[in-house]
Amino acid sequence: MNMLVDGEWRTDAYEATTEDGSFERQETPFRDEIRDDPDARFQPEAGRYHLYVSYACPWAHRTLVMRALLGLEDAISVSVVDPYRDEDGWQFTPDKDGCTRDHVHDADYLRELYVRADPDATCRVTVPVLWDTEEDTIVNNESEEIMRMLDAEFDEYAERDVDLYPEGYRDEVDRIVDEIYEPINNGVYRAGFATRQEPYDEAVDDLFVALDHWDEVLADQRYLAGDRLTEADIAMFTTLVRFDNVYHTHFMCNVQYIREYDNLWPYLRDLYQTSGVAETVNMDHIKEHYYTTHPGVNPHRIVARGPDLDFEAPHDRDALPGEPPSALVAAASADD
Amino acid sequence: MNMLVDGEWRTDAYEATTEDGSFERQETPFRDEIRDDPDARFQPEAGRYHLYVSYACPWAHRTLVMRALLGLEDAISVSVVDPYRDEDGWQFTPDKDGCTRDHVHDADYLRELYVRADPDATCRVTVPVLWDTEEDTIVNNESEEIMRMLDAEFDEYAERDVDLYPEGYRDEVDRIVDEIYEPINNGVYRAGFATRQEPYDEAVDDLFVALDHWDEVLADQRYLAGDRLTEADIAMFTTLVRFDNVYHTHFMCNVQYIREYDNLWPYLRDLYQTSGVAETVNMDHIKEHYYTTHPGVNPHRIVARGPDLDFEAPHDRDALPGEPPSALVAAASADD
Repeated sequence: MNMLVDGEWRTDAYEATTEDGSFERQETPFRDEIRDDPDARFQPEAGRYHLYVSYACPWAHRTLVMRALLGLEDAISVSVVDPYRDEDGWQFTPDKDGCTRDHVHDADYLRELYVRADPDATCRVTVPVLWDTEEDTIVNNESEEIMRMLDAEFDEYAERDVDLYPEGYRDEVDRIVDEIYEPINNGVYRAGFATRQEPYDEAVDDLFVALDHWDEVLADQRYLAGDRLTEADIAMFTTLVRFDNVYHTHFMCNVQYIREYDNLWPYLRDLYQTSGVAETVNMDHIKEHYYTTHPGVNPHRIVARGPDLDFEAPHDRDALPGEPPSALVAAASADD
Repeated sequence: MNMLVDGEWRTDAYEATTEDGSFERQETPFRDEIRDDPDARFQPEAGRYHLYVSYACPWAHRTLVMRALLGLEDAISVSVVDPYRDEDGWQFTPDKDGCTRDHVHDADYLRELYVRADPDATCRVTVPVLWDTEEDTIVNNESEEIMRMLDAEFDEYAERDVDLYPEGYRDEVDRIVDEIYEPINNGVYRAGFATRQEPYDEAVDDLFVALDHWDEVLADQRYLAGDRLTEADIAMFTTLVRFDNVYHTHFMCNVQYIREYDNLWPYLRDLYQTSGVAETVNMDHIKEHYYTTHPGVNPHRIVARGPDLDFEAPHDRDALPGEPPSALVAAASADD
């Protein structure tokens, strides 16, 4: 697989799996932060920052959901790469449905932005990327940290008064985000990219134990952290929304569909129907990306049909304690 | 892929798919028949004929189910090949769980039997094979015809008075067996072995239209041909029993599970619970075969977990018109 090595594009430099056949995700290298502090290098401003995303990528998707929930569409612009990723990595194909040009530099490949930010970059070229147009560099490419920055530092520019990391819930949110990462968010990749039976089996075991657990939890509370919609729900959402159509078959996480779960499935619909979220879901990009980009998993690059999912069906979760932030409820009513 | 050409084993002679990416199944070449007729070359006898099968193969499985329902276990012996099929084709690995030696010739590979039957054989080497120990040759290797012969010609040697091709139902059985073949029995292969998107899409469309249709039919009648268990049910059974654990994921027939169907799923359990049938189902062989034998579909040969299916759960289909042949009901009671 491909990556940058000292700023050079190499298509043979990276092995996604270790010798024992397990998938190991590498750490993302750009970890600066935007802070609402006059001494900070990167300060929150409208129009200064730009997000590079793929609709296909669950990590990039998290930042898109956060941006939508907060109403940061006008403050932070977005470029969308082609869901099909070949030897050249993520690229811009503005003529393709749902894709855009690189609005900042008109680059052809996302890797050009990485090299622009660091001529000696040695890393994989991933989305999301939070770009600073003022310093012409990458601020951060770690989805969790970008989500948190948008949530915490952009109150002044957000159209909606929404806080997804609220006081009194923070320890719980941190705990849940951490707890679901390995078995669920990354677990589907550990199953799908395993090249031997044992790491696959372990990943599938962990994944469904965790899904069963959260299905139980969600029987009595509307959201993962209780009665408040939080970042933890976004982190869960972008995995669940891909599950039945991609992870289930392409990554062989096929013990059951999410739509067969008593609570996870209505929970997923509830999140999908939260104001702004549906517009961030591009199932065509999601399916095209996974099925066509991993020939080691799916050699003929045929896109599996997958189940028809009615994300708009009533979810009845409003009977449980908790409701979305009032600004989101108001936004939803205004849409009607 | 491999086949015999003029009696020589060739590993490069056969393409499963055509230029447009569609799977095309080849006709089986040995088509003689056993007939209860003094002039016939092959006459029914106990102990004379031998079946070569794989538990994994749905076509071979049909003949095993027929043999079990009729009670022909003592009259017709069986050899079971290794579910894992490599470049050498089906082989005998008697030390492996569920496998046997070649009880007739102690061959290492099934192809040896084909060459023994016809030194110039030009064909794929498939199961089932119905072998005549008297003339030391293959009688037939077409599952549909073998099923019919066992059903029609072995009354004298069958332990149970069961007729699965009964007068008054024959046209209907023929029609159904023919009707389900292309979209369902062969349809899962057309989906799984397609190397381009279009033939895959067509196969999946056809498959689920047909499954939906039969699900509706089975709402009001216990069996495919009405109130009688027939060969048509055997033909459907060996595909359905593999569906959720293999075809669904490995062949990307993932619109829904059979277990999600209101009627097909209880129908499948009903057949599974019919006396003698459960013993013919070796899910370990089924899963190992498919997931490890088609690297073009599943390069790392990892066996997907698949759903847990409770084939023993009550099916409540006895409320519908129809019941199994009385000899099978008696056999089931005798087992209790």
